[in-house]
Amino acid sequence: MIKSREVRLKSRPIGPVALENFELATVNVPSPQDGEALIKNLWMSIDAGQRTLMGSGDADIADLPPKRFELNEPMECQAIGQVIESHDSNLPVGTFVSSNFGWREYFVFKGKQDGFTLTKLEVPVSPLQAHLHIMSVYGATAYYFITQCAKVQAGETVWISTAAGTTGSMACQIAQISGCKVIGTTGSDRKVEWLMEELGLDAAFNYHAPDLRDAIKAACPEGIDVYLDFVGGHQLETAIDLMNPQGRIIKVGETSSYDGGKTDGPGNLFQIVLKRLDLLGRSVFDILAQPARMENVYARLGKWHADGTIKVQETVYEGIENAAQAQIDLLGGKNIGKMLVKVGEPENIR
Amino acid sequence: MIKSREVRLKSRPIGPVALENFELATVNVPSPQDGEALIKNLWMSIDAGQRTLMGSGDADIADLPPKRFELNEPMECQAIGQVIESHDSNLPVGTFVSSNFGWREYFVFKGKQDGFTLTKLEVPVSPLQAHLHIMSVYGATAYYFITQCAKVQAGETVWISTAAGTTGSMACQIAQISGCKVIGTTGSDRKVEWLMEELGLDAAFNYHAPDLRDAIKAACPEGIDVYLDFVGGHQLETAIDLMNPQGRIIKVGETSSYDGGKTDGPGNLFQIVLKRLDLLGRSVFDILAQPARMENVYARLGKWHADGTIKVQETVYEGIENAAQAQIDLLGGKNIGKMLVKVGEPENIR
Repeated sequence: MIKSREVRLKSRPIGPVALENFELATVNVPSPQDGEALIKNLWMSIDAGQRTLMGSGDADIADLPPKRFELNEPMECQAIGQVIESHDSNLPVGTFVSSNFGWREYFVFKGKQDGFTLTKLEVPVSPLQAHLHIMSVYGATAYYFITQCAKVQAGETVWISTAAGTTGSMACQIAQISGCKVIGTTGSDRKVEWLMEELGLDAAFNYHAPDLRDAIKAACPEGIDVYLDFVGGHQLETAIDLMNPQGRIIKVGETSSYDGGKTDGPGNLFQIVLKRLDLLGRSVFDILAQPARMENVYARLGKWHADGTIKVQETVYEGIENAAQAQIDLLGGKNIGKMLVKVGEPENIR
Repeated sequence: MIKSREVRLKSRPIGPVALENFELATVNVPSPQDGEALIKNLWMSIDAGQRTLMGSGDADIADLPPKRFELNEPMECQAIGQVIESHDSNLPVGTFVSSNFGWREYFVFKGKQDGFTLTKLEVPVSPLQAHLHIMSVYGATAYYFITQCAKVQAGETVWISTAAGTTGSMACQIAQISGCKVIGTTGSDRKVEWLMEELGLDAAFNYHAPDLRDAIKAACPEGIDVYLDFVGGHQLETAIDLMNPQGRIIKVGETSSYDGGKTDGPGNLFQIVLKRLDLLGRSVFDILAQPARMENVYARLGKWHADGTIKVQETVYEGIENAAQAQIDLLGGKNIGKMLVKVGEPENIR
């Protein structure tokens, strides 16, 4: 019987997430039975959105959708794994799979009842973990936000918040490919440097700077046409101030409130009227519901990935025992690009 | 030489507008010269938007567009007048005109240089003041917001704020004509009664009620699909809470801040993402820029006006000497429907 370590949610965080909110437990994984397969996780995806699923000590916001993680149960996240033992003819040994069963080293997959949470990687790309960033919903999301929601046009000026994050950094590059001037905001001077030197943005700023508004205004005297908002709060208010008439704000997140912080709404919403802005709430789930549309998106992303047009930086923590720290560090902004935990090595069994 | 009384802005209001902010002065109006015409104002339009043009004692927001009224000068507003003496062949004596030269009894119009602020009413409708509500930009705006911006569909639930105001009450009726369930919010129990009995809304509420959210939720268990926001602040936040997925919020004003009040932004903007809402800033100026499109709109409004499909309630103050009080009472919510000042009687000279 295989032993698997798993990370459980021990308590709901109040304020910033801490190690004490997690517990590393070891469980026995039973051998797979008829119609079942044993999966070994190789890579897991650490994302800011998981914070909302941990809930909060604040009872007032405890009922927010979607469904929160259960206490004292392993959490969930997207993971890439490999079938190492199988009694399911659909899942031959050696097959690579993407599932929602992260935060654990091994799991038994019962085909029929849980099928929607596990998909075979029919054509695995290299490296495997690209299925957790550019060839994942995050890559597709970046594409969807920039081209379909914001409908960017060549020559426009696009501001992307959390520009050094997974989706943000891909969105920056897709806006560049679209012929836009691109500026980004991020949380540290090191990331600013990375955005300028690696991604070649037109300008990048540390959003902690007290003169953020003036700095962006100086860098973009022509104004902002599109703002991609992962953040809310002060940055959204600043963007509304600096938007050009007929500008589009695509709001996709609210990281300023994820980690227990409170976010005030922007006090300048009347400018949305004066400037005829569109403020659109959008999510990756919009396109997940349209698999046919996704195929085209992945074909395009796959090409850009293969020929190096889009680069993705990875921040990798090794071992399930460091997964909780990876989550904490992601929320603390310590990553550049995609935060990943390498859970195991692939078996040479195919 | 004709004497004309005019209302001047004497000081910029700090907080609610008061009589002391205005001055009623009498001036001599010179006889019209070659190419000029003397216009007698008959009706003037009192609107909430004029408040923003008065500016504020608060220097921080003094530079907001559009251009503020000058101190110690007559203010401007839309007015219906009649040509009573003319040396301009384009403006025969007796012609009714719409201009931006309200807040005065008479004025001399110098054709060429000021032409853009005065238009002949080629086919005046009855009553004349309908050119200040249903057959004005306000009627066109209500039509545009409901049909073109919100794209309402039969069977949807539409919430209209300031439902007893000019644009609001017309928007309610256009949404009803479109087959929607319509609820309205307004500032007094008397107006709630009017909305229910005269306009036949499905539900109406006094927004001062402490349990507004619960009351709307109870009246609309199916949720809100479209919210027309003239108000901002608490009502916008409540709407975001109650919106259905894929709902549309058309933001057209911010009366909660017009009269010197401060408005906090909604603290629940992340729901815009969770529900994939569109928050669109729109204004009558969007269609004013497209005169050809306006013709169709006015043809439709004219039909609805003529056959009584759309009713407009008027609140009329008599005499230029009561215009300042009319503005104060409008901002204080004392009107039902269109606030007008009757400045003079038409001359029987055509």
